Amino acid sequence: MSKNKKNKGAPKYVYTFGGGKAEGKADMKNLLGGKGANLAEMVNLGMPVPGGFTLTTELCTAYYDNNEKYPESVYPEVDWALPILEAEMGMKFGDPDDPLLVSVRSGARASMPGMMDTVLNLGLNDITIQGLIKKSGNPRFAYDSYRRFVSMYGDVVLDMKPHTKDDHDPFELILEAKKEARGVSLDVDLTAEDLKELVSEYKAAIKEIKGIDFPEDPIKQLWGAIDAVFGSWNNSRAIVYRKLNNIPAEWGTAVNVQAMVYGNMGDDSGTGVAFTRDAASGANYFYGEFLMNAQGEDVVAGIRTPLPITQLKEIDPKSYEELDAIRLRLEDHYADMMDIEFTIQDKKLYMLQCRVGKRTAFAAMKIAVDMVAEKRIKPKEALMRIDADKLNELLRPIFDLKEKKIALDNKQLLAKGLNAGPGAATGKVVFNAEDAVTLAKSGDPVILVRVETSPEDIAGMDASEGILTARGGMTSHAALVARQMGKVCVAGCGELIINYKTRTMRVEGSDIVIKENDYISIDGSTGEVMAGQIKTSPSEVVRVLIDKDLKEEDAPVYQIYKQIMTWADKYRILNVRTNADQPDQASNAIAFGAEGIGLTRTEHMFFGEGKIGPMREMILAKDVEGRKAALAKLLPLQREDFEGIFKAMDGRPVTIRTIDPPLHEFIPHDDAGQKEIADMVGITPEAVKERVEQLHEFNPMLGFRGCRLGTAFPEITYMQARAIFEATVNVINGGQKVMPEIMIPLVGHVAELKGQEIVVRQAAKDVMAETGVDFPYLVGTMIEVPRGAITAKEIAEVAEFFSFGTNDLTQMTLGVSRDDAGSFLPMYVEKDIYQVDPFVSVDQSGVGFLMKLAVKQGRKSRKHIKLGICGEHGGDPESVEFCHRIGLNYVSCSPYRVPIARLAAAHAAIKDQGKKAKKKKK
Amino acid sequence: MSKNKKNKGAPKYVYTFGGGKAEGKADMKNLLGGKGANLAEMVNLGMPVPGGFTLTTELCTAYYDNNEKYPESVYPEVDWALPILEAEMGMKFGDPDDPLLVSVRSGARASMPGMMDTVLNLGLNDITIQGLIKKSGNPRFAYDSYRRFVSMYGDVVLDMKPHTKDDHDPFELILEAKKEARGVSLDVDLTAEDLKELVSEYKAAIKEIKGIDFPEDPIKQLWGAIDAVFGSWNNSRAIVYRKLNNIPAEWGTAVNVQAMVYGNMGDDSGTGVAFTRDAASGANYFYGEFLMNAQGEDVVAGIRTPLPITQLKEIDPKSYEELDAIRLRLEDHYADMMDIEFTIQDKKLYMLQCRVGKRTAFAAMKIAVDMVAEKRIKPKEALMRIDADKLNELLRPIFDLKEKKIALDNKQLLAKGLNAGPGAATGKVVFNAEDAVTLAKSGDPVILVRVETSPEDIAGMDASEGILTARGGMTSHAALVARQMGKVCVAGCGELIINYKTRTMRVEGSDIVIKENDYISIDGSTGEVMAGQIKTSPSEVVRVLIDKDLKEEDAPVYQIYKQIMTWADKYRILNVRTNADQPDQASNAIAFGAEGIGLTRTEHMFFGEGKIGPMREMILAKDVEGRKAALAKLLPLQREDFEGIFKAMDGRPVTIRTIDPPLHEFIPHDDAGQKEIADMVGITPEAVKERVEQLHEFNPMLGFRGCRLGTAFPEITYMQARAIFEATVNVINGGQKVMPEIMIPLVGHVAELKGQEIVVRQAAKDVMAETGVDFPYLVGTMIEVPRGAITAKEIAEVAEFFSFGTNDLTQMTLGVSRDDAGSFLPMYVEKDIYQVDPFVSVDQSGVGFLMKLAVKQGRKSRKHIKLGICGEHGGDPESVEFCHRIGLNYVSCSPYRVPIARLAAAHAAIKDQGKKAKKKKK
Repeated sequence: MSKNKKNKGAPKYVYTFGGGKAEGKADMKNLLGGKGANLAEMVNLGMPVPGGFTLTTELCTAYYDNNEKYPESVYPEVDWALPILEAEMGMKFGDPDDPLLVSVRSGARASMPGMMDTVLNLGLNDITIQGLIKKSGNPRFAYDSYRRFVSMYGDVVLDMKPHTKDDHDPFELILEAKKEARGVSLDVDLTAEDLKELVSEYKAAIKEIKGIDFPEDPIKQLWGAIDAVFGSWNNSRAIVYRKLNNIPAEWGTAVNVQAMVYGNMGDDSGTGVAFTRDAASGANYFYGEFLMNAQGEDVVAGIRTPLPITQLKEIDPKSYEELDAIRLRLEDHYADMMDIEFTIQDKKLYMLQCRVGKRTAFAAMKIAVDMVAEKRIKPKEALMRIDADKLNELLRPIFDLKEKKIALDNKQLLAKGLNAGPGAATGKVVFNAEDAVTLAKSGDPVILVRVETSPEDIAGMDASEGILTARGGMTSHAALVARQMGKVCVAGCGELIINYKTRTMRVEGSDIVIKENDYISIDGSTGEVMAGQIKTSPSEVVRVLIDKDLKEEDAPVYQIYKQIMTWADKYRILNVRTNADQPDQASNAIAFGAEGIGLTRTEHMFFGEGKIGPMREMILAKDVEGRKAALAKLLPLQREDFEGIFKAMDGRPVTIRTIDPPLHEFIPHDDAGQKEIADMVGITPEAVKERVEQLHEFNPMLGFRGCRLGTAFPEITYMQARAIFEATVNVINGGQKVMPEIMIPLVGHVAELKGQEIVVRQAAKDVMAETGVDFPYLVGTMIEVPRGAITAKEIAEVAEFFSFGTNDLTQMTLGVSRDDAGSFLPMYVEKDIYQVDPFVSVDQSGVGFLMKLAVKQGRKSRKHIKLGICGEHGGDPESVEFCHRIGLNYVSCSPYRVPIARLAAAHAAIKDQGKKAKKKKK
Repeated sequence: MSKNKKNKGAPKYVYTFGGGKAEGKADMKNLLGGKGANLAEMVNLGMPVPGGFTLTTELCTAYYDNNEKYPESVYPEVDWALPILEAEMGMKFGDPDDPLLVSVRSGARASMPGMMDTVLNLGLNDITIQGLIKKSGNPRFAYDSYRRFVSMYGDVVLDMKPHTKDDHDPFELILEAKKEARGVSLDVDLTAEDLKELVSEYKAAIKEIKGIDFPEDPIKQLWGAIDAVFGSWNNSRAIVYRKLNNIPAEWGTAVNVQAMVYGNMGDDSGTGVAFTRDAASGANYFYGEFLMNAQGEDVVAGIRTPLPITQLKEIDPKSYEELDAIRLRLEDHYADMMDIEFTIQDKKLYMLQCRVGKRTAFAAMKIAVDMVAEKRIKPKEALMRIDADKLNELLRPIFDLKEKKIALDNKQLLAKGLNAGPGAATGKVVFNAEDAVTLAKSGDPVILVRVETSPEDIAGMDASEGILTARGGMTSHAALVARQMGKVCVAGCGELIINYKTRTMRVEGSDIVIKENDYISIDGSTGEVMAGQIKTSPSEVVRVLIDKDLKEEDAPVYQIYKQIMTWADKYRILNVRTNADQPDQASNAIAFGAEGIGLTRTEHMFFGEGKIGPMREMILAKDVEGRKAALAKLLPLQREDFEGIFKAMDGRPVTIRTIDPPLHEFIPHDDAGQKEIADMVGITPEAVKERVEQLHEFNPMLGFRGCRLGTAFPEITYMQARAIFEATVNVINGGQKVMPEIMIPLVGHVAELKGQEIVVRQAAKDVMAETGVDFPYLVGTMIEVPRGAITAKEIAEVAEFFSFGTNDLTQMTLGVSRDDAGSFLPMYVEKDIYQVDPFVSVDQSGVGFLMKLAVKQGRKSRKHIKLGICGEHGGDPESVEFCHRIGLNYVSCSPYRVPIARLAAAHAAIKDQGKKAKKKKK
């Protein structure tokens, strides 16, 4: 660096590379951009890289800060770097005999493929062209390079490129005219002379349109190109891309000036792109493609079919061997799968690019696991390379990628909704839950399509492969239940027009009508709804753990999953529980590694066989005696439910929430249904109707529900608590352990909790006295009303645990109904008001503030209060990390998200360097 | 005090009074109770008070702390006090010739009338009775006193009293038997001998039931009575009363032991109660009643008719003069209107009690104002003696009290709802808004009865004297609009069954049917709904200020109001604004002293003449162009609205909220209405229906409303801002000043506000450029979403002011929908979960926390940010004081509550000793 000229205190803006040594290195990505840093690194590793130099991202920032002018100190730096490059390449800029030609390319910290500008073949002019002809012995090649340079330079630097779709590129027009004049249709059929004429004609066009002469001075050309590349950092494409990918404008781009090498100089030349392993499967072999006598763009353009990289061994064994050695060297050095670009010029191999290779989610997992086995990386690093959300691909059925592509190419895509329950499902459309059950019994795969679902649809949802709804968000009933069941779900597909009468659906603005029993396919990972049947394949992990029709040793994918989970469990501090309402859900969750239940919603149980009747009787009862009589019928049924869950959980903690939803949800709103109930309960249909009207609410979310029900009707809470404790005793008597945690919902004031606590403890006392069996239990609350979080100190005087109900807490803190948010929340995310849907990932500055407050205040009254989360956020990796940071004890999520939460918890712990990775016990 | 025996460090528990000197004084109420402290004070003032001593409240506390045993030190203290009392009265306890008899009464810090026990005539036994006979010369009087003492002592001390309603008092049974045996029906017809027998029979009953002898030893009697009175502090009546009146159990009661005097010793004896001024009107004359040869209970029992106090002048001029002098002396001394009790025994006057007299709200105001004029108190003190809420009685029509009493006695009370809009109204029932308008035009007074009201009912509400609804809470549409209009309103009267078809209403469980055109009367201050017409009289203040049909000099009540307001304005620091949507409301508010508008809801305007059409067109428009076309029609109409308000406000600040409610509120939900609109807009009724369904929301409160509308359709915000600014320019050009403050509702994220701010500022810029007129304006936001309060620091970077929308903030923070809260909130208040309805008075620990947070955080970004409140709480005295404490600049409330807010603000400032009473300028 000391070779550089004095900058009078200004930073160093130019870094050279080439000839076995570079001023930069891989970890200087922020300054040199990804491309520049990796080129420098390869040079330092002794790999063959055409020489060059990098203008730093700091120069870009200075350029913009300084009203698009460079700091003076950069000019002497470039004057110093150029001769080094010339010496390295043995050529000179502007040399009529053997001219140095260079490329000028952007290179930002984060990859922004194709967003910014590039100029190739820079240094050509009417004099140096002779040198290129001489050196290549190929006038056509030389003039084609010259023609391309002038048009590229004209477009990029001199702003000749079209600015609207309807504009024509003047260079294209000239080229077309030339081909017509020559009576040929392909560029390759033009002769060297034709191309030479094109150069003159292009220059004339520039003069005519822009009123300037094409610059013949290579140094002038160079600065023009540098200006243009820095300038392209702020073109509209780049701005949009940065916004989409959260890349700050302040980062700036670097510019790389590098000697040109040519893969199209003849049959001893060639070019290719490769991965050090298979980017799709993750398998450890050299994967890539190349073409001889070709330029980089030919490999990807698809006009000529590239050859697999292994064939290079036969065509140019020396280059292949060198390349393969470099591949291994790079993996050794970077300890990761790399994506490389190379060119062979006259049998000499040049590396043009190397970077960490993009890969499929599955490949990422396989490579990470393999690299640990190869001792390239530690398990901790392997975990950090796996996107927790992408574990879904191991847990859910997936479409056959080829079949799906054919379907999409075939315009079978009907609409797009919310990716509410990941996975792939295909089946026959039905429009109600009963039909779903019937059709499924006949053995056909079923997709249940509803405007929205309600608790009455649960059996139908369970019978279906997938669920599609027109309304509702990421935490709507359909989405929530589907995730808990592990079903594929596309929710809130607003364009769908569903007609229950005609049993058809269509998409707004389209004529295609999907009828009952027609096949459709839905992708719950992308939200796509497609007409027709697309093949799916099931998850190996599910087959081994849940279906148990595949052995572990026959399931290589499962083995990868298992390895990842083992590592994750070693590092994570957070416990992971599940939300489960039924014994089978509980068992599934345990198979996925759940360490307890964080939320059992008792209300779903009321829709089970034989339970809805007494429930409705209870609601329609005139007085407390009537309610108690109905509750007495419900008690044994609830007890049975709890026994099943306790047995499945086998001593793990089980948090059970007392009744939460408004009562009207349990009574039908249609005349026929009301008549039926009236007959059953023995009252008039009018009385039922009147009760339904009385229960009607304008904003049921903020209405008579949660602990407000239990406060008004303590006999309901008592019955539920008694059912829980009787089940506890029965299961203890059966020889298992039980750890029930009774959770009171919607508490905003400690007095509400206190009242309910008294009822619960009375039930416990009664059951203990009657059975003579002692058992442990906890009484706690959900923190889901903002006031609950605000007054957490008082509430923790009663509550033995808090569980954050972040669904409701988000609704109330943001004033957004999840069921209605479809009309504006997507717009909000699009406008970047919220960067992600706050029902998907915890709104950390709003809802998160209240969570932190509640944690702090709660611990003031009860130092070791148990803290968890049971909202849908419990399965979202970002939210899981947040929960770790604020010091919760556990997260709880739907069974199929348990592995994701385990991995996310490990990520959080690994990131959290400050704390020791010591796992707290439940 | 030094005369007292040594207590070995224990506190002094006994304070003597009598003979011109007392150990206590008036300001020792906490220790001696109200009664004891005032008795001591009167003694010190040289007034004739029967001697006695007070056992302190500290003794009560010690008694309960010490497992219902007294500290040893109290016994010698009583032994010391008794002889002093005996010396003072010239009688001895247990003296067979002239026995000292005493009363033992409770006396707490706060008055708890009739809640605790009393024993009279203590000291009588079979020996001392002879002394009493001798002294009174009246054996019947003596035995009657003895009999009463034994039964009272038996009940209170020996627990002979019945404990359930069905139990009989054994003494009553014996008395009845005696009367039957004697063939008489009245107690007074029993002879001395009969009464003597009763004494024996009572004692025998005690022996039989309790197995103990009646204590003959006066000292034993005394301690038994003291135990009983202290014990009665914790009887269930007293506990309930304390809970209702927020009196802490720790306060304890004092016990007063005082020499008995008798008003029933003959025609030279008597007893009475009096007020130093008229407690009903506040007029300054001696007001009271007395009876000769009677005991205190006879005056209030209503068997004999008491005489007005002035007649005492004729019967016993000396006592009267002495009493009148004491009356004046007490007012001089206490500087307040006093309530006194006296007894005359053998022409000698004794004062038995004095305390600050209860009075009507109006009397309180008159007395306070008069006492300042009399230089007894300072204006500051006068203000503190007036309950701000009670100012309503000066501002609203009131029922003729006699007529109302007759109506209630006549069982005309139908039901009770929420006292949502104070005042009295009587009129003919109509069941819809159109009928209200029609009937009112015919000159009849109208009461509009609806299940609930909606914006479409506004004209009908305006035409009515009062509004009665079956549903909705204190901040329901009906309640809110009624208060703003100054209408009487009873809301949420859940027992009402309203039948629109038959145009009748009845009350659940009653057969009375009220038909259209029947008269009813509603009391918006109590929530009473009564059948029939009850005379009302209008408010003098309203007649002077609003109706202008009464001159100030002919309106004494108005003069009192004016004086109070003048003082209030001198002390208050908070500014008071009003919520007003129309010029007339604005003018009324100014008459009541409003200093600006804190909230103009623009949506009410859309229901005005000719506006709903374009509004609906706008909502039904398919695209932004359609919306803009409809908005163009609305713009001039809105501009006119704003001009009217700006003119009325004449330069005072006017906060205008951009559109807030969900759009579906503007479109009818019935088929006929939808058809009509479809025809008007030129689309199919199905299209209207579809749009209505699309706009339907499960929880509209948390839905697509507030700034979410303006964010989705910035053209609406632009139109409204432009209308505001065009109106501003027009009014400025008319020679008035205008200070518009544009307020964006429902902001939860600064990005929402930022987006709307840009639109508003663009409109301002456009209007300034077009008109060449410069004008000041502010852009701010409501803080009504919890997240808004939490992120107030960020929001204040954009907002120039915050206005707390505590209605919505309460709904979201507590998770309670005001429209649905009727099903559980009254129960919550009853169960003391919330001590007051949080929609009436700010929930200071929940909602208040967020308000304080927002104030603190907001000032971090913008030190002098203007802070106000525009929720309904802005007119609630407790909430106003809270707003003062947390440092808001202003409160805003409905016009008729402006005076209340002014007084409450003065109270807050006077209480807030720490700050200087320096009024901030707007």
